[in-house]
Amino acid sequence: MAAKSHEAYRESVAGRADVADTPELLGYYEELGALAAGALWTVANKIEPWQPKASSVPVLWRYRDLREHVLRSVDLVTPEKAGRRVVYLNNPGRQDVAAAVGWLYSGLQVMRPGEAASAHAHSASALRFIMEGRGAYTVVDGHKMTLGANDFVLTPSGTWHEHGVSEDGTTCIWQDGLDIPLINALDAGFYVVHPDLKQAVTHPVNDTSALWGGVALRPQASAWSKSYSPLFKYEWAPTYDALVRLSKVSEGNAFDGTLMHYVNPVTGGPVMPTIGASMQLLRPGEHTLAHRHTGSYLYQVAKGRGFSVINGQRFDWQERDIFCVPSWMFHEHANMSTTDDACLFCFSDLPVMKSLGLYREEALSENSGRQPVAPA
Amino acid sequence: MAAKSHEAYRESVAGRADVADTPELLGYYEELGALAAGALWTVANKIEPWQPKASSVPVLWRYRDLREHVLRSVDLVTPEKAGRRVVYLNNPGRQDVAAAVGWLYSGLQVMRPGEAASAHAHSASALRFIMEGRGAYTVVDGHKMTLGANDFVLTPSGTWHEHGVSEDGTTCIWQDGLDIPLINALDAGFYVVHPDLKQAVTHPVNDTSALWGGVALRPQASAWSKSYSPLFKYEWAPTYDALVRLSKVSEGNAFDGTLMHYVNPVTGGPVMPTIGASMQLLRPGEHTLAHRHTGSYLYQVAKGRGFSVINGQRFDWQERDIFCVPSWMFHEHANMSTTDDACLFCFSDLPVMKSLGLYREEALSENSGRQPVAPA
Amino acid sequence: MAAKSHEAYRESVAGRADVADTPELLGYYEELGALAAGALWTVANKIEPWQPKASSVPVLWRYRDLREHVLRSVDLVTPEKAGRRVVYLNNPGRQDVAAAVGWLYSGLQVMRPGEAASAHAHSASALRFIMEGRGAYTVVDGHKMTLGANDFVLTPSGTWHEHGVSEDGTTCIWQDGLDIPLINALDAGFYVVHPDLKQAVTHPVNDTSALWGGVALRPQASAWSKSYSPLFKYEWAPTYDALVRLSKVSEGNAFDGTLMHYVNPVTGGPVMPTIGASMQLLRPGEHTLAHRHTGSYLYQVAKGRGFSVINGQRFDWQERDIFCVPSWMFHEHANMSTTDDACLFCFSDLPVMKSLGLYREEALSENSGRQPVAPA
Amino acid sequence: MAAKSHEAYRESVAGRADVADTPELLGYYEELGALAAGALWTVANKIEPWQPKASSVPVLWRYRDLREHVLRSVDLVTPEKAGRRVVYLNNPGRQDVAAAVGWLYSGLQVMRPGEAASAHAHSASALRFIMEGRGAYTVVDGHKMTLGANDFVLTPSGTWHEHGVSEDGTTCIWQDGLDIPLINALDAGFYVVHPDLKQAVTHPVNDTSALWGGVALRPQASAWSKSYSPLFKYEWAPTYDALVRLSKVSEGNAFDGTLMHYVNPVTGGPVMPTIGASMQLLRPGEHTLAHRHTGSYLYQVAKGRGFSVINGQRFDWQERDIFCVPSWMFHEHANMSTTDDACLFCFSDLPVMKSLGLYREEALSENSGRQPVAPA
Repeated sequence: MAAKSHEAYRESVAGRADVADTPELLGYYEELGALAAGALWTVANKIEPWQPKASSVPVLWRYRDLREHVLRSVDLVTPEKAGRRVVYLNNPGRQDVAAAVGWLYSGLQVMRPGEAASAHAHSASALRFIMEGRGAYTVVDGHKMTLGANDFVLTPSGTWHEHGVSEDGTTCIWQDGLDIPLINALDAGFYVVHPDLKQAVTHPVNDTSALWGGVALRPQASAWSKSYSPLFKYEWAPTYDALVRLSKVSEGNAFDGTLMHYVNPVTGGPVMPTIGASMQLLRPGEHTLAHRHTGSYLYQVAKGRGFSVINGQRFDWQERDIFCVPSWMFHEHANMSTTDDACLFCFSDLPVMKSLGLYREEALSENSGRQPVAPA
Repeated sequence: MAAKSHEAYRESVAGRADVADTPELLGYYEELGALAAGALWTVANKIEPWQPKASSVPVLWRYRDLREHVLRSVDLVTPEKAGRRVVYLNNPGRQDVAAAVGWLYSGLQVMRPGEAASAHAHSASALRFIMEGRGAYTVVDGHKMTLGANDFVLTPSGTWHEHGVSEDGTTCIWQDGLDIPLINALDAGFYVVHPDLKQAVTHPVNDTSALWGGVALRPQASAWSKSYSPLFKYEWAPTYDALVRLSKVSEGNAFDGTLMHYVNPVTGGPVMPTIGASMQLLRPGEHTLAHRHTGSYLYQVAKGRGFSVINGQRFDWQERDIFCVPSWMFHEHANMSTTDDACLFCFSDLPVMKSLGLYREEALSENSGRQPVAPA
Repeated sequence: MAAKSHEAYRESVAGRADVADTPELLGYYEELGALAAGALWTVANKIEPWQPKASSVPVLWRYRDLREHVLRSVDLVTPEKAGRRVVYLNNPGRQDVAAAVGWLYSGLQVMRPGEAASAHAHSASALRFIMEGRGAYTVVDGHKMTLGANDFVLTPSGTWHEHGVSEDGTTCIWQDGLDIPLINALDAGFYVVHPDLKQAVTHPVNDTSALWGGVALRPQASAWSKSYSPLFKYEWAPTYDALVRLSKVSEGNAFDGTLMHYVNPVTGGPVMPTIGASMQLLRPGEHTLAHRHTGSYLYQVAKGRGFSVINGQRFDWQERDIFCVPSWMFHEHANMSTTDDACLFCFSDLPVMKSLGLYREEALSENSGRQPVAPA
Repeated sequence: MAAKSHEAYRESVAGRADVADTPELLGYYEELGALAAGALWTVANKIEPWQPKASSVPVLWRYRDLREHVLRSVDLVTPEKAGRRVVYLNNPGRQDVAAAVGWLYSGLQVMRPGEAASAHAHSASALRFIMEGRGAYTVVDGHKMTLGANDFVLTPSGTWHEHGVSEDGTTCIWQDGLDIPLINALDAGFYVVHPDLKQAVTHPVNDTSALWGGVALRPQASAWSKSYSPLFKYEWAPTYDALVRLSKVSEGNAFDGTLMHYVNPVTGGPVMPTIGASMQLLRPGEHTLAHRHTGSYLYQVAKGRGFSVINGQRFDWQERDIFCVPSWMFHEHANMSTTDDACLFCFSDLPVMKSLGLYREEALSENSGRQPVAPA
């Protein structure tokens, strides 16, 4: 049998590996293999790329396509058997790790009035963004929060948490966002089912909003030193209001429009150590310039309709659609309405990039800062 | 002439200085004096007290007493000659440094519609708490902020700032709070008059509230790394609302009731490095337990009426009265209304105590935690 | 063709997914697949493991096995063609990413007197631990450092760096440790070859040791705010001396013996944001207790001989051998000499675990804290 | 009796107060005084100076003048009666607070072989710099440290500490440096005598040097989160060695020569929150340029002889002399030897200036950066 070629990554550039196979070398490679080793020059150019080449691909998931399937799961499986009825987003480039983009998981979960998932805790960090329905609630370490459309809630690493829909609510669908693929990749995933499958609500409902949801106020009676935000719930109404006010006093950023990061009010830092979140407003007709940066980003359309150009490909979106921007791919966003603003919710691994010193950013310099769009 | 006695601070306690004067020692002390030196044992017990003995005394300044005098200054001096028309609070124990308590300065300033103070900058940090009138505004480094009763605004160290009242406003009175005595004591006071005596407004009015006043939101387009809060204005309405909401979900603290610290939203820390501020709500009939802690505190009654017991002395207060709690004096607060809440604004050098590791706190253990009140 | 089974990860435990395939479900799964989606319950138990199951396996690489192959590369390839002559360690569980353990790369590089690698920069962070030879040097951003056995040097993310051996030296072998697999996994890898293939030495040789290598001293004339240590070189002699002194005053830790982390002297934190390093001393006859924790660890024996038990498997080691401890595997170390101490150098992704809040630790509670060793 | 004038601080500058006394105003001032208040314009220019005007004056204390008096205290008072036999430095501008400069206390303490001071704790922070003698030791929270000339040791806020000289030592003299005046000024001083007047030594002698005195190494087995350095002792020999090495690779700073700050190895920050310390080396013949900055500085000559020009006044110094530089006074240092280096130890309130955002610095721009010296 012919020996495997080791020439696949040769580059004829000074400072890069460019070694041709020889019978002697092939024998050498085999000996190294037997020692759990290899010759760097056979893989150096592969593992030291000139710039990031994400295996994730840009994808847009249309809500009108997914919604029916999500609802159908209600009839197909019971909560008891399925644990949770969730359709997860499976990026074609990341199927092996069940990721929507990069190391981020996303799933659309459905729940009927009166149902509740069993309580559990895991070292993964999670958030839940409500897409439709009334009566959703989440309990985190004894704090119960009621949730409406476009609200989102944290269920941070290590917290007991459970989701439910009240008896007098309607069927609810939400997006779950997690760093499960990252945590697994880092060999740091722990999972515990609550001994009672349910936790007691030990605080007044929505108390975290009263404690930590003041404008630039910190309650004297409460200490907080955990690595995640104690303000578990981030509501849509005040966020949208803040964006509108901001858009009136600031031009925003050429690449991001009017964008605000959700923060941990105790530190001003990201909501969780591994997942950040933001909401951005595009003014009527606004079309941002293209830039690219490291990190993986999953967007959900909270309001309006428009399109994004990602890596030269155009994706048209409307409310509740989801799309992703993989690392180091140029992207720009456009609001197609001339009268209404559009809002994009986004969660990402930006805090990871920042903590590890890996964030890089670059504007598109050609073509007046807009990408040529490839024909469909 | 008889030599000065050096026995004033003797204590007959093991580990403390207890040296009697002798002729030889008195001669020795004189020799040391000539060398710009002294014998430690003559002052050791004085400079190493068992616990803090503030030179400040508890004082309550009644607004009904001061208001007339403040208004009268309008007729007595011109802004041009006086710089600012201010009645400052002069703690009887701190007259030499013009302090209201500890190293904190406080003054009541009055301004008529259409007037404005000249712009300046200083290394002292300042805040301004509006007591009455309409149309007050402050400009800080080109940001203009409009101010209503119980709003407060920062004019941090090193910023160009100026105060005014709009033409269509009414005569305004506010409290200025500064760390001037501290900055002078630390030999770090700089003062500059703006070359034009007035600065340009270079941003939309009240833009800092739109930029930094969201609930747990950080604007992407604005960076901030200064040591003080970029949210210069803290408004009364959302603060009071937050206190009311907080009082419904939390018992608060036995010593402070429902108290929230104003924070720098970028860091979660104090609004300025040398001055902190808080607003606290006392429920109808609430009477807190007594405790004491290091730091100097100046209170202004923002709402309601009640009394405080400070170092065993009772002070009755109503809206807009000002009183102080010197370091390490026991204090407790009571709301005398059985139907309405009361609110106390407070600024202090608490951030200094914390930064320098000097904060200590102690509950009153006797008498069920309430101070016996000395007869007036 | 029969549809693929989706039952592989079923668990019959409350709160976990336990859904049997049905024809209807298999059809549903196919439809989801066409939408770049899937049903969570088919993968939930896989992606939410009860605890970490590292794909890396424990490996010991004997230096006496590898040395000859490393040296042979000198004859097999030229530096010009190979870039660098390196034998990298290829963990059988991580071959796809060329990692020694977890997301850490390790390679043994050889260089002859008078040779130098071309200068480059990358977003990966690297260190270099000298195994044998005289005359090795490294240049980092214009700072040249000379290196002896058991010294290690940082070439942090974004720095220009190059390695060489002086004309009057001997053939040198060292270990390169990098986070290349992690950086690639996070889609954040950039690589630049220096335009001149070589950088100028712009500072006195070994100046960083004079600037930042004092005991608890910071040079006034130099500022440093980068995320990595400015003390690029960590020398063996003072480190070993410090360990010996420490071992005389402290019992150390039951699991780690006498262990010191190398730190960034400017912050006291890890040497680089993604890679930490430590040196540990085992007293004669010392045998630590077993514990496990998250993170991936690569050890190099700096001194002595002994064995480690990793996940129930015994690995005997001697000077310059390399072995790895994958995440969450129990491990214990023993010094087999009754007269001499043994020292283990280790680099790891511990700073990543700490930054992201993923560090967990557990002692072995059974068997008096020592693992039963599986028969070979 | 004539009313007191209130015109003392008038300035005829736009933006400054310039109000002449009138009978009406004098009456007004009196009324305000009765309300514990005053008119700002009578003191504004005083309390808002254009720049710092320290009340401290530059002083040089010659050791040859003080030494005899320090030794004489041994015969004059017993340790039991005096507590400690200390001659403190009494800046003529700061006699009321027993300070050597600004808010810093300094005293020269003497102790005979076999003597020990009683153990106590206080909220003041202290350091002790050995001037002469053998056998000095200090115990801090159970850690005993032996001390030689030019070593210094921390006794941080809140720690139990005591000083002594071993039976086989010689009479020792050292400088005590404390922030007592600052702590008193901030009304934050607490003092406790140890119940046994003596504490047990609970750790190996000099263990903190073994634990925390490695070069850029942190012991795994010891945690530390206090606000001060766990490396209580800073030794002369490695410090001098580090300065010499530094002086060979770096030009240093035009104003400071070769200066290193002592740091807390856990954080890289100052040794204590309120007191910083540094050692600086002046090369043979080196004469630094003049600058000024905020903060109060007390120097002790550790080696050599030279002079300093402070606020235009020349002070000649030699080994063990002490001198001070008050805030915002120009200063420059010169080594008068053409063959030997000179070293200056300094402690200061620089960490306070930095924490509170009050540090400012300015080079002398005239006269080629050197001060004209006033005739004596």
